[in-house]
Amino acid sequence: MAIRIFITGGTFDKEYNELNGELFFKDTHMHDLLEMGRNKVPVAITTLMLIDSLEMTDKDREWIVHQCRQCAENKIVITHGTDTMAETAGVLAKNIKNKTIVLTGAMIPIKFGSSDGLFNIGGALAFVQSLQPGVYVAMNGRYFNWDNVRKNKDTGIFEESK
Amino acid sequence: MAIRIFITGGTFDKEYNELNGELFFKDTHMHDLLEMGRNKVPVAITTLMLIDSLEMTDKDREWIVHQCRQCAENKIVITHGTDTMAETAGVLAKNIKNKTIVLTGAMIPIKFGSSDGLFNIGGALAFVQSLQPGVYVAMNGRYFNWDNVRKNKDTGIFEESK
Amino acid sequence: MAIRIFITGGTFDKEYNELNGELFFKDTHMHDLLEMGRNKVPVAITTLMLIDSLEMTDKDREWIVHQCRQCAENKIVITHGTDTMAETAGVLAKNIKNKTIVLTGAMIPIKFGSSDGLFNIGGALAFVQSLQPGVYVAMNGRYFNWDNVRKNKDTGIFEESK
Amino acid sequence: MAIRIFITGGTFDKEYNELNGELFFKDTHMHDLLEMGRNKVPVAITTLMLIDSLEMTDKDREWIVHQCRQCAENKIVITHGTDTMAETAGVLAKNIKNKTIVLTGAMIPIKFGSSDGLFNIGGALAFVQSLQPGVYVAMNGRYFNWDNVRKNKDTGIFEESK
Repeated sequence: MAIRIFITGGTFDKEYNELNGELFFKDTHMHDLLEMGRNKVPVAITTLMLIDSLEMTDKDREWIVHQCRQCAENKIVITHGTDTMAETAGVLAKNIKNKTIVLTGAMIPIKFGSSDGLFNIGGALAFVQSLQPGVYVAMNGRYFNWDNVRKNKDTGIFEESK
Repeated sequence: MAIRIFITGGTFDKEYNELNGELFFKDTHMHDLLEMGRNKVPVAITTLMLIDSLEMTDKDREWIVHQCRQCAENKIVITHGTDTMAETAGVLAKNIKNKTIVLTGAMIPIKFGSSDGLFNIGGALAFVQSLQPGVYVAMNGRYFNWDNVRKNKDTGIFEESK
Repeated sequence: MAIRIFITGGTFDKEYNELNGELFFKDTHMHDLLEMGRNKVPVAITTLMLIDSLEMTDKDREWIVHQCRQCAENKIVITHGTDTMAETAGVLAKNIKNKTIVLTGAMIPIKFGSSDGLFNIGGALAFVQSLQPGVYVAMNGRYFNWDNVRKNKDTGIFEESK
Repeated sequence: MAIRIFITGGTFDKEYNELNGELFFKDTHMHDLLEMGRNKVPVAITTLMLIDSLEMTDKDREWIVHQCRQCAENKIVITHGTDTMAETAGVLAKNIKNKTIVLTGAMIPIKFGSSDGLFNIGGALAFVQSLQPGVYVAMNGRYFNWDNVRKNKDTGIFEESK
């Protein structure tokens, strides 16, 4: 069965607006990344929202939970802003069992030259295929259980929270 | 314990010689890739050789086996040319037990704009952390057991051989 | 004699701060660009300031005029934010005669993948070598006299103002 | 009137064939480059041939001369392999007067990350707009008269031949 990929936004998909110098969302770059990676794992990509994760509401997270629960696939990758990725992971873990869900994102927009996005999506797709059911964050080459992860705001690096 | 990364060459590390228009090896780009991916998994990188895998000899493969066996780490990623990656995987599997070894590479040199190398190394690092001991090939977002993989020469895609 | 290159900032040299998602200045990327372009025209690069051109003051422009006047070279390229590039060109034209001064910049930061910066600096260096003394803006592959140029705020394109 | 751009091939437009590891021609990348540069100079692009300049024959050069002579535009940019760029410039100069013709190319294919192609085309377009009628080579940020240029085979740098 295919792997479901849900897009929620975050730095991963931000673009530079050359008229006003601000970052904005237009569309996901997931298809381009998977093509660049010559990915042949069957995937089904759905864009749930394209927002900065600092602006993600409880309602948004309910929607993500709902989509993860109702989709046919039991292996799910979610792209997500890094600032509240751990929080969303917690909400998912409390509501969904028996599926392997891996959240990932990027520190640098994919559209910018030196993004970590391609590395991270390569890792997330691998982890979702090989880890036991559960909710995980995959960043910095590592995976973390949902209840033992935080983003270090000073360094931008994900680390154990316990 | 750190993950051992052995470099053997392949398209992954090829560069363009602007004086004669040929591809050549100078040094591995693994460090740059891991930096771009903001990798924080402890790794120890050793360049065993920098060769086209079509030119890899039995002697070279013995050397790779020897290095994999004698190193302290039991999780090993090997970068390798795609043409004989499956063959080297077979030699490793027959000689080494109790270690997780993941071979990966690239169809496009990392130094060229649209390489799959960053995606592949992200996947290989994830697979080596999460798969059981054994020898695997990680390409195209997928992983293959050493005894069930071949590169389709017409498409450049890795697939099951059975 | 060398061509003098004065750096003043602008989108050209902005970078993405991955900790707070904002754009900022660290250093000029001019040296990298000239190396990528295999430039062999003798140049002397001086960073006068690294600011957004919307924040450029009269005092800043006086400083640029002073530097252009006092430097030994009579061919000068200035990198500058696009929003007030035409204004600075006007100030320079009123104060400096007998030198060829070409202002250029970028709509997309050089550090991002798809910048126009390398194209623009290639053009600016060519124009400064071949145009008569005067003050010009070089953008969009074209050159404009200082008194007949404006940036169209709606399109981001430079055009004649008369 | 528009600037005519004639494409003849060279490293500029080479691509990497990931199935056999060789470089080949598919199509010109000129349109992508001009879009990236936000070029607004009217241009008319014609691909005359896509060949390695070491394989360019007298017949090919006749064809280029014919096209340059018969086209309506009197400002012409020609992309060309670097190895025999100076030779073609000489043939053009002996056959065409009253037009400004600028030959340029690249040391690294545009499709590879670190190409000088965007810088060179930015320069060539600027030189063709500002130089007197004649035949020139524009490389390394400089322009050379057709009768005083050669490529240094050891360094890959263009220099005066006298």
